[in-house]
Amino acid sequence: MNLLLLEEKDFLSDGTARISDRRCRQLHDVIRATPGKLCKAGILGGKCGTAEILAIDETQCRLVFTAEKEPPAPAPLVLIAALPRPQTLVKVLHCAASNGIKKICFIHTFKVEKSYWSSPRLAPETIREELLLALEQAGDTLLPEVKFFRAFRPFVEEHLEEIASGKRLLGDPAGEAASFAENATLAVGPEGGFTDAEKRAFREHGFTEVSLGKRTLRTEFALQGLISRIVR
Amino acid sequence: MNLLLLEEKDFLSDGTARISDRRCRQLHDVIRATPGKLCKAGILGGKCGTAEILAIDETQCRLVFTAEKEPPAPAPLVLIAALPRPQTLVKVLHCAASNGIKKICFIHTFKVEKSYWSSPRLAPETIREELLLALEQAGDTLLPEVKFFRAFRPFVEEHLEEIASGKRLLGDPAGEAASFAENATLAVGPEGGFTDAEKRAFREHGFTEVSLGKRTLRTEFALQGLISRIVR
Repeated sequence: MNLLLLEEKDFLSDGTARISDRRCRQLHDVIRATPGKLCKAGILGGKCGTAEILAIDETQCRLVFTAEKEPPAPAPLVLIAALPRPQTLVKVLHCAASNGIKKICFIHTFKVEKSYWSSPRLAPETIREELLLALEQAGDTLLPEVKFFRAFRPFVEEHLEEIASGKRLLGDPAGEAASFAENATLAVGPEGGFTDAEKRAFREHGFTEVSLGKRTLRTEFALQGLISRIVR
Repeated sequence: MNLLLLEEKDFLSDGTARISDRRCRQLHDVIRATPGKLCKAGILGGKCGTAEILAIDETQCRLVFTAEKEPPAPAPLVLIAALPRPQTLVKVLHCAASNGIKKICFIHTFKVEKSYWSSPRLAPETIREELLLALEQAGDTLLPEVKFFRAFRPFVEEHLEEIASGKRLLGDPAGEAASFAENATLAVGPEGGFTDAEKRAFREHGFTEVSLGKRTLRTEFALQGLISRIVR
């Protein structure tokens, strides 16, 4: 936890905040914070600043927050990803959110197993919890928007034009070496890749293939590599 | 498993190979290979090619391998990493090896917890198993060399000059944006970073700081990002 994320509901009428969940346990058990301790904090959806611990025990922590500055700038990148297997979904969410991506669209494609769509990890509260961990990791306060599109064609025909912003990039081992783009949308396929018809659909909407090289990396590493090439 | 890795000891006197471990279970249970099936394969330390399944059941698989080409070129990058916590070590090994890094040095630094050095995950056979999984992922056959240095000063004074090859880069959020290098050595610190004295020691040996930006990413993501920026 590189940033303690506070929400409006944590604040009491006197302006101090009180937390009693995972964040309190982390402050108490891991960081071993004691009264007077200062730590980096932020308001979910708002500013970053400093929290001073006023009182703390195993079950709750009271603190006072001082806002100081805006959160880090969002990454100018929209992510469109074929829905990965559930244990990879968690890593993809973490990777995207900790890199500052603010719009994440998971889509169905031919090679996405239908069973992935019924995973409990797609529950909004589970997604949100993962995103919060990623914001705490990266020192950010702005939750990404996560959307799910359970059919490929309707996604491409009805939503892609509105979603795709900036340079349109399709992750593909046969593409040009990925490189910096001022503002971009990156689409990444499932294990096994997009089908030729799916690639054609993206190409018809102006996407061009970009690659990290010939090695096949795990989804989350391929994604991180592409993000690091595209975003400065 | 994008590549079936065979070892000399898998081969019988008639030139065919027989496997009965994890690889056989994966072929049988996950890939559902049947006799006649062709799959990408390689000889550990040797060439890549094709394996044809001759016979397969739950317990063993016989196959014939045809060598076709050299494995992918190694990444021209040496990695020096502060020893991470054991669960992260596994991810760092996977990331480095699947990206084609062939020399990985784990070192002690001030902020490395001493207990990490007694983890069972440092056992050579455990390390080797992780590396094999990464080679299978990336379609490679060349095992990286992994070394451990349990004291910082002796490492810097007696080994660093010999180990460091090409451009000398130190991962640091305050550095220049990381970019392509023909041939390089990348040093990455522990959670919490290198101390000022440690950074100075690297600088005295010609290392300059490179960064992925201001966001603090998980070790394995920061590593992947730096590798993708540095290696073409």
